[in-house]
Amino acid sequence: MRFEESFKIWNQLSEDEKRQIESSIVQRRVKEHSMIHQGSLDCTGLLVIQSGQLRAYSLSEEGREITLYRLFEQDVCLFSASCIMPSLQFEMMIEAEKETEFWIIPPDVVERIMKQSAVFSNYINETLSARFSEVMWLMEQVMWKSLDKRLANFLLEESVLEQTAQLKITHEKIANHLGSQREVISRMLKYFQQEELVQLSRGTVELLDMDRLEMLCE
Amino acid sequence: MRFEESFKIWNQLSEDEKRQIESSIVQRRVKEHSMIHQGSLDCTGLLVIQSGQLRAYSLSEEGREITLYRLFEQDVCLFSASCIMPSLQFEMMIEAEKETEFWIIPPDVVERIMKQSAVFSNYINETLSARFSEVMWLMEQVMWKSLDKRLANFLLEESVLEQTAQLKITHEKIANHLGSQREVISRMLKYFQQEELVQLSRGTVELLDMDRLEMLCE
Repeated sequence: MRFEESFKIWNQLSEDEKRQIESSIVQRRVKEHSMIHQGSLDCTGLLVIQSGQLRAYSLSEEGREITLYRLFEQDVCLFSASCIMPSLQFEMMIEAEKETEFWIIPPDVVERIMKQSAVFSNYINETLSARFSEVMWLMEQVMWKSLDKRLANFLLEESVLEQTAQLKITHEKIANHLGSQREVISRMLKYFQQEELVQLSRGTVELLDMDRLEMLCE
Repeated sequence: MRFEESFKIWNQLSEDEKRQIESSIVQRRVKEHSMIHQGSLDCTGLLVIQSGQLRAYSLSEEGREITLYRLFEQDVCLFSASCIMPSLQFEMMIEAEKETEFWIIPPDVVERIMKQSAVFSNYINETLSARFSEVMWLMEQVMWKSLDKRLANFLLEESVLEQTAQLKITHEKIANHLGSQREVISRMLKYFQQEELVQLSRGTVELLDMDRLEMLCE
């Protein structure tokens, strides 16, 4: 996919804005598990994803993690340009969950076009709103939903994303997605196994009963 | 305070934009405890606060609450105009915590100016970023910090806001701010009292030892 197709508002930009972007973008390919952004110190620029999968997460002082959202093809990663948005004051980590290709629009170009163009600024607005909504959804889950529901929901989402019922994932990794601890997740997964919802083996969680997992989420 | 002084970007707007706003704004005064916004069904418009205090909170299906952030003089309330931002998809409640005066810019005027003006759109961006950051802070608190720290932090913030060490607040109310339950908060406050951090009496929490409460937050 070409940049023009990946960047959703391309056709709405002026010729001058297009030229500024074209002459400054850099294309990059990173391997699975690469760190893309580590808190507010980094300022790479606006990333436009061509293919692959990124994961945005929050990291506690003690090293615990919780997944905030994922980014896919045609998504825009804003937090790697957070230095140009002084009110966006929080630390976020972004890693590649799969091999990922993206373009980078440098921060100074983003800043310049954002100041001139209502189209561009409204697109940033929309992106921010979408991410904000995802984090609010998560916040509500964490506040009001019990861990069994969140775990069932996570397993179902993963099986859609990976297109398999045989998830290759460790209990530690699941804990990092859900902001929980390995021991807690292992205990809950064992309970799921007793209930014949899943089958556990080394490094694998197999989903046995999608219908009942879905019922659990509701 | 006049509208021109309350609305921070007034001087950066064009004459035409100023005229559109001036000819459409409505001034309103609401009493303490008034509901300003109840989820995505309402679409009052953009509120510009002249004086008073608003509280934005999330409400669970079971009626539990957690305070997301507060808005004060010169702040802008965006969620009362969320209908014009299709990506902003979550339910939020907004109530007046004190008698509050504000201006309303109607949603259609906000939408029109946002489409034209990069200045206006960037201001919405900045507002969204600031709210997003507040919610992320809260999310991190909820995920990584224990309730005793969050309670200590809340009591200290309230005493700054109300300019007194004698807080007139019920345990139920505190629970609603922190997304907790009355029984849980009462138990923790009793523990704080044993530790001589606070003194409890009917409807009042008196802060006795600010220094140790602050140490607890860290």
